[in-house]
Amino acid sequence: MITSRDNSQLKQIHKLQSKKGRSSSGLFVAEGEDLVTTAEESGWTPEIHLRADEDVEPELLDRVSSLGSGTRVIGVYRQRWSEPRGDICVYLHGVSDPGNVGTIIRAAHALCDGPVILGAGCADPFGPKAVRASMGSIFARPPAKASLSELAGLKLGLDSGADSTLLEATQDANPPIVLCVGAEREGFPDEVVACLDGIARIPQRLDGPDSLNVAMAASIGLYELGNRMAHHA
Amino acid sequence: MITSRDNSQLKQIHKLQSKKGRSSSGLFVAEGEDLVTTAEESGWTPEIHLRADEDVEPELLDRVSSLGSGTRVIGVYRQRWSEPRGDICVYLHGVSDPGNVGTIIRAAHALCDGPVILGAGCADPFGPKAVRASMGSIFARPPAKASLSELAGLKLGLDSGADSTLLEATQDANPPIVLCVGAEREGFPDEVVACLDGIARIPQRLDGPDSLNVAMAASIGLYELGNRMAHHA
Repeated sequence: MITSRDNSQLKQIHKLQSKKGRSSSGLFVAEGEDLVTTAEESGWTPEIHLRADEDVEPELLDRVSSLGSGTRVIGVYRQRWSEPRGDICVYLHGVSDPGNVGTIIRAAHALCDGPVILGAGCADPFGPKAVRASMGSIFARPPAKASLSELAGLKLGLDSGADSTLLEATQDANPPIVLCVGAEREGFPDEVVACLDGIARIPQRLDGPDSLNVAMAASIGLYELGNRMAHHA
Repeated sequence: MITSRDNSQLKQIHKLQSKKGRSSSGLFVAEGEDLVTTAEESGWTPEIHLRADEDVEPELLDRVSSLGSGTRVIGVYRQRWSEPRGDICVYLHGVSDPGNVGTIIRAAHALCDGPVILGAGCADPFGPKAVRASMGSIFARPPAKASLSELAGLKLGLDSGADSTLLEATQDANPPIVLCVGAEREGFPDEVVACLDGIARIPQRLDGPDSLNVAMAASIGLYELGNRMAHHA
């Protein structure tokens, strides 16, 4: 039973709550029964596994938790990255909100076979908010890292200024397809635009907001591509 | 210039950060330049409008902010509710996460003509997290409150256990349509199921997660219904 806050495992967990601690060690933290159970079911062995009252005093575990309410269990895992390929993948550029990155990892797990591929300017998918938003999908389907120019397949960008709707643009599309999604306000920079084979828009009301949330846009895009591919099959 | 934390407007704002304070007064708070500007553009007149350094000492404004980083401007507004009707509306049951409620308000603003209708067990759409997640769509498209049985139109529930896909179930659908979305894990209780005219599922991979995020599911549903109605028109 760990009873001192100077314990090395607790210190390690505390360090992993920061991006620097994660990138220097290649490890990350999952908090809570649901996430730790999902990790186990997905065949991940924790490097550290601490349960309140069994392995550590509850207050000490709460001290290193990223949750305001504290937590009863923490697992530490080695980061894994997938290969950036599949019939349908999603590529993110400049998606800096970790909640959105995690939510898109969950959406891709539900809706397509390929991983979420992280380009420049994206939030760390192994940060606590992203891991939590992924609801454990980060274990079943670890993300990939690549620049768009390296990727094979048809690269279709979601862009509210496009002439074609998603439905029109995907009519004759064949896998592999990479759905490209950028930051909500900025859209794609020139170097990304140069790599795209086409752009498509999600039809929106003229009296609507300036943009959709990036996780919603990605989900709708993956849904449409999934329907499209099912029709081909 | 307000220089005392005992100022009545600051006290009022502080109270409005709690659900109780909002329901007893019928007011709510929007923080930050973007939201306050959107409110103005949507024709909302603030009951209180405080800008750091101009109307109030910055530290005092930060003290009543719901944002960890503080804020430069706060507006207080009277809550408004829409009538629960439109060609396409979305009805939420038991969606208790305020971020999801706000995100769905934004999605509905982009994708359908009707409001988000809040049933039992939903988060307060005028709480700070929901207002923020709506990105100002709460001003353009205030939510409605109703029970499902009061609503007119075809009531279609999203349910991962349904036989029909969304595409199949909406094939011959005509407006008005109410898309019904429940809590992520629990699904619909019996009294909601009894009101539904049909259920449909969003096709998901068998090796995927147990469920989609409720805001993603609602967005995909509204997208599909929007496409469907566009074909009818």
